[in-house]
Amino acid sequence: MATAVAEAAAMRRAIALAARGLGSTSPNPVVGCVILDASGEVAGEGWHQRAGGPHAEVHALRAAGDAARGGTALVTLEPCNHTGRTGPCAQALIAAGVTRVVYAVADPNPTATGGAQTLRAAGISVEQGLQEAAAAEGNAAWLTSVRLGRPHVTWKYAATLDGRVAAADGTSRWITSAESRADVHRLRAESDAVVVGSGTQRADDPHLAVRVVADTEAAVVQPLRVVVDTNGTAVTPGARVLDDTAPTLIAVADDATPAYEGAETVRLPRSAEGGLDIPTLLDVLHARGVRSVLLEGGPTLAGAFVAARAVDRVVGYLAPVLLGAGPAALSGGGITTITKALRLDVSETVRLGPDLRVTATLVAKEH
Amino acid sequence: MATAVAEAAAMRRAIALAARGLGSTSPNPVVGCVILDASGEVAGEGWHQRAGGPHAEVHALRAAGDAARGGTALVTLEPCNHTGRTGPCAQALIAAGVTRVVYAVADPNPTATGGAQTLRAAGISVEQGLQEAAAAEGNAAWLTSVRLGRPHVTWKYAATLDGRVAAADGTSRWITSAESRADVHRLRAESDAVVVGSGTQRADDPHLAVRVVADTEAAVVQPLRVVVDTNGTAVTPGARVLDDTAPTLIAVADDATPAYEGAETVRLPRSAEGGLDIPTLLDVLHARGVRSVLLEGGPTLAGAFVAARAVDRVVGYLAPVLLGAGPAALSGGGITTITKALRLDVSETVRLGPDLRVTATLVAKEH
Repeated sequence: MATAVAEAAAMRRAIALAARGLGSTSPNPVVGCVILDASGEVAGEGWHQRAGGPHAEVHALRAAGDAARGGTALVTLEPCNHTGRTGPCAQALIAAGVTRVVYAVADPNPTATGGAQTLRAAGISVEQGLQEAAAAEGNAAWLTSVRLGRPHVTWKYAATLDGRVAAADGTSRWITSAESRADVHRLRAESDAVVVGSGTQRADDPHLAVRVVADTEAAVVQPLRVVVDTNGTAVTPGARVLDDTAPTLIAVADDATPAYEGAETVRLPRSAEGGLDIPTLLDVLHARGVRSVLLEGGPTLAGAFVAARAVDRVVGYLAPVLLGAGPAALSGGGITTITKALRLDVSETVRLGPDLRVTATLVAKEH
Repeated sequence: MATAVAEAAAMRRAIALAARGLGSTSPNPVVGCVILDASGEVAGEGWHQRAGGPHAEVHALRAAGDAARGGTALVTLEPCNHTGRTGPCAQALIAAGVTRVVYAVADPNPTATGGAQTLRAAGISVEQGLQEAAAAEGNAAWLTSVRLGRPHVTWKYAATLDGRVAAADGTSRWITSAESRADVHRLRAESDAVVVGSGTQRADDPHLAVRVVADTEAAVVQPLRVVVDTNGTAVTPGARVLDDTAPTLIAVADDATPAYEGAETVRLPRSAEGGLDIPTLLDVLHARGVRSVLLEGGPTLAGAFVAARAVDRVVGYLAPVLLGAGPAALSGGGITTITKALRLDVSETVRLGPDLRVTATLVAKEH
């Protein structure tokens, strides 16, 4: 039998393994699994690598082979019970002779639940809740998307200490450091879609793809590049997002006449404020399997997301720089008085070269 | 003889002791001293507690008594050689029979230097530079004031993650938490003067004194409260800064007709922008013995200090809150393009309740 200490260590490892799948498993969750043999030694490990591929448990059981018999499986999410593209994991665990299953987070997805029940019915010892908070945080995007029926949105911005994203004359290269900019590529790689607005499109002509580093272990799954180009005038022929590095979707208003050619386009209604309706945009992305959105938009688009209550997490790259003038990081959002301010919890602060990365998540509210 | 490890520990202790004097020693530096006896054990310690009182070395030698003979003195700053109000410390160390003196920072003050030379001439082993950077940081205000001939200025602000100091309707109580607000009182207690502008005076009617906590070891030396009330219209009779908790100085323009009565007033020339001339204000404060200024002013006054290149350190209390509208933390300052931005180094980040305190210091430049 594995000791509690061995199980805790194995679950930590499973959570770390799960994170490797971020950005390539949607519409599935990320999942990690570690199999301990009957004596409590690690016998196999695996993670869900991409949608359509084997689940974490299957990878780990394959690696463990016969050593799984009489052993314990540590899984970050409740093993599935449904026969999807890869067969139910609960059955695979039973067939492998595992005698104990510990999972961190219960599966909230109605089509997948029941795995624990099936395992128990087969006489397996089942426990839920080990390191649940950490595992849930690692799966925040997918869990949010299940709960709210829309993708999880992370708003990323880079600003000075006084909250400016550019100087008075519009110059902004580079407010933050090379270390911070490299970190943004990690965020993109972990996301299913990257979204900018027409202001950023015009000012920066961004590429929005993940820069592939030579020693990357697995091939990067490029996120869907999304430009919210309400009037269809910001994306022009030759724009960098129109290359074939990654898929691109341009969202324009019903009545727009796009200036570009050759990109996939979706037509959306306008909001009362004249921009595109953000909930409809998120519906469209959700329907395409997008579960995590990295909003790299400028102040106006970020304000529209805030107004739509569609920001779940904020990642701010703060440069120790003062400007005293220039556009603020966030504009609009419909908040006019301090008691209505959007309050978040700081979940992490990290030094990145000279800069500071602050991650904050929306304070949980009743739904 | 004290070992190198014992000396390092004693210097760390001396630096911590020195910090206790912050806010009450000006125009003198803060200094801490630890005496190790001949066997390397701590025999006495002391710190400079207030201007006019005994120097750190004298306190420590008194505590050590005869145990100082043959011992080592660890001092954060070069012992003084001049006969001021308390007699030269170099002579006191010689008289006590100390055989070794280790100091962290050389005294840049021309009227005080030569202490090391005097000690060496008396046959004492003298070493400089142990933990110099940490000791210099602890004495940053005084060292800056010696170097630049003006007080060291810390700009303190409290803002949202998107850089706002108030909502669109002007409400701002409370953006930051009780923990952050308590911490500001610590900053005030460490400062010789606290400065606000007319905007803050009108909006908040601040008291600006240090809230005295019941279990405070020593009596708090209240900072000088300074209101930059250019037109003399912001401070009105009954203003809280006019009470007798702490001294108050109101700075008005040459041509102003003050609305208040009974407060000390200094008349200053206007700058080209119409506010008061900041360098002249700092000259006035320096002449009064002020070595450290805590600028609690709003965006406009902070901008005037930035424009005058008179901000040495920034302490930002960042609340994990988004507003999307409202005044920015810093306004003006004369920076129009990104290459002219004021660049700082983050020296510390601390979580204070839900908030983040970011301390950044001006990147050292040629002078």
